[in-house]
Amino acid sequence: MNYEHVLVTSSGPITTLTLNRPEKRNALAMPVMRELTQALRAVAQSDALGVILAANGPVFSAGHNFGDMAGATLAQARELFGVCTEMMDAVQAMPQPVIARVHALATAAGCQLVASCDLAIAADTAGFAIPGGKGGLFCHTPLVAVARNIGRKRALEMALTGDVIDAATAAQWGLINRAVPADQLDAATLDLITRATRGSALSKAMGKQGFYQQVGLPQAQAYALACELMATAAMTPDAQEGIAAFLQKRQAHYTQRPSGTGA
Amino acid sequence: MNYEHVLVTSSGPITTLTLNRPEKRNALAMPVMRELTQALRAVAQSDALGVILAANGPVFSAGHNFGDMAGATLAQARELFGVCTEMMDAVQAMPQPVIARVHALATAAGCQLVASCDLAIAADTAGFAIPGGKGGLFCHTPLVAVARNIGRKRALEMALTGDVIDAATAAQWGLINRAVPADQLDAATLDLITRATRGSALSKAMGKQGFYQQVGLPQAQAYALACELMATAAMTPDAQEGIAAFLQKRQAHYTQRPSGTGA
Amino acid sequence: MNYEHVLVTSSGPITTLTLNRPEKRNALAMPVMRELTQALRAVAQSDALGVILAANGPVFSAGHNFGDMAGATLAQARELFGVCTEMMDAVQAMPQPVIARVHALATAAGCQLVASCDLAIAADTAGFAIPGGKGGLFCHTPLVAVARNIGRKRALEMALTGDVIDAATAAQWGLINRAVPADQLDAATLDLITRATRGSALSKAMGKQGFYQQVGLPQAQAYALACELMATAAMTPDAQEGIAAFLQKRQAHYTQRPSGTGA
Repeated sequence: MNYEHVLVTSSGPITTLTLNRPEKRNALAMPVMRELTQALRAVAQSDALGVILAANGPVFSAGHNFGDMAGATLAQARELFGVCTEMMDAVQAMPQPVIARVHALATAAGCQLVASCDLAIAADTAGFAIPGGKGGLFCHTPLVAVARNIGRKRALEMALTGDVIDAATAAQWGLINRAVPADQLDAATLDLITRATRGSALSKAMGKQGFYQQVGLPQAQAYALACELMATAAMTPDAQEGIAAFLQKRQAHYTQRPSGTGA
Repeated sequence: MNYEHVLVTSSGPITTLTLNRPEKRNALAMPVMRELTQALRAVAQSDALGVILAANGPVFSAGHNFGDMAGATLAQARELFGVCTEMMDAVQAMPQPVIARVHALATAAGCQLVASCDLAIAADTAGFAIPGGKGGLFCHTPLVAVARNIGRKRALEMALTGDVIDAATAAQWGLINRAVPADQLDAATLDLITRATRGSALSKAMGKQGFYQQVGLPQAQAYALACELMATAAMTPDAQEGIAAFLQKRQAHYTQRPSGTGA
Repeated sequence: MNYEHVLVTSSGPITTLTLNRPEKRNALAMPVMRELTQALRAVAQSDALGVILAANGPVFSAGHNFGDMAGATLAQARELFGVCTEMMDAVQAMPQPVIARVHALATAAGCQLVASCDLAIAADTAGFAIPGGKGGLFCHTPLVAVARNIGRKRALEMALTGDVIDAATAAQWGLINRAVPADQLDAATLDLITRATRGSALSKAMGKQGFYQQVGLPQAQAYALACELMATAAMTPDAQEGIAAFLQKRQAHYTQRPSGTGA
């Protein structure tokens, strides 16, 4: 599959999706969002074990394209934010762990995209902002994702001021997993996604998808869901293989893939 | 409007409400809570763009007045905590960003008030506690606000021990935005509220109020709410003005106020 | 009461429950979980004011016993995770504050047990992991507890990589209250649980149990619950004693215990 604005490359079990519209600061214009969603869904069906989400050019992503919103009707605006939310959901719904590799500024829906990834590493040259609040259109939907990663006071500081926080602050607040010197970004990203993709792909997929189902629920409901999921998961050949390998002190061989994925 | 226990001052677009019952350690006695709620609602209707919540005297606020609770009936106690919650809700319901300027100790409902503000800056001479748990009446309602700002273990440490944490710890845990030397408190507070009040007042109001609606919901429900809000917001003249100004590379001129406010 | 795998010791008002199956790395095998649940419930009914949860041997707890899961039926797996969740719930349902004293590695359901305690102190020799995700069976249920203590990105890093984080990192992320040098572990644990058990035992019990009821709810529901609880609590003799003692500038004498507990 070829896309106009998204590069797809693979190295072993890791697929990298790279936003490649640097002259537009990787703005999430409608066709870009549709393509990225399509690319995420294609990888979801593939035999890739992990995904790196990256971007080319001086900006990671500037968020929505204001051109899409100038003079839009309410129906068009609804469609825009619906398509955007679908893209964010696609990241969290896919079976593979997804890590954002953030080399530069990520703002508005671009920052939301980082917040929506399972993991994120940023170079110390990166920055994060949800700047709508200092203009005319508050970053309502980006704040949904950002506020689910960092505390309320910090989320409101970002949303109300619209100012950029640096990568070290983002790491301290929990918006990303860590900040590293720019020349270590690739190595650190690869290290974390590699560690995050060991073991059974089926087990990992059930784990990631179960996490997003339970994390927003009251605890008793979350446990009801997680107990049933864990009991079901314990019945899978991969789980039994892991248990047998442990008991027999041998290396485990996992073979199961999430249904619908390749290999 | 004149109040007995709350000073109202304005400097440009920023209104400061100052608890002014230093000899009672700014305890949140019934008349104080009713006045502060009234003052918050009056500012909500005014053309102020931002609010600083401050206090005079050696203590920011000591929380509830034990005199109000000695020998109270159940109906009276219910009224007391109802009036208190109404005051906390008034802070979060009003259209303007509210920042707490905390120069000294904030305890129990006084700490809850800080936790309920959108933003907070404290001097390094400040401290925070929800001390009921080391006495006879646990800080049940303060813990609602505190636990929504900091992690569970830290919230329980504060609530179960009742001990004071210093401003630096409060900043590290996310209860406040930052701790500064006492002589920089005014400048830091003004700086943050100024940055938090740029742009369209209408947009900011929709953003703040939408935040408190979505933040406690499961993510899918939060997105449903935020998408509809953002699409609606994109239709406002202020949003279109911001978009047009950006596309035309000119300064934006925002004119819209939340309905019900002055100007 | 004597248990095979759990030691029960008391020092003044503090009861210590110690997992004592060091040769099995304190794995949470079925009989161990049933005993610990029974022991927690017995302490809940006792006149103890606080609980330390500790462990003997080179590992705090290795989590579930893989032997229990090898070849299990779905019904057996459901029972296993049901019994496990009951144990976690017993920690949070009991009236006394419970602190984990973590001297060494706590993994999977062992890490979940620490996350489920009200408070936790770890030695700098301790470590924390939910390692299922790097094998064949993802730590679905441990992640319920872990994700309610730390941020999403950090919870997913732990769950997806399965790698161990050290005690200092656990403290920084909020999974535990603090990390201390190993030779200060007992003193620090005793200090925190002592501070957490001052005041009225009834008030503390209402506070702890109310916390777990409200913390996962949307804020308006949480306030409705907490207001009613606080008004009811204000009617108790212990609350009135605390208020009277404060107003009369004398020492308070609390006498009330949660219903069902001894003394």
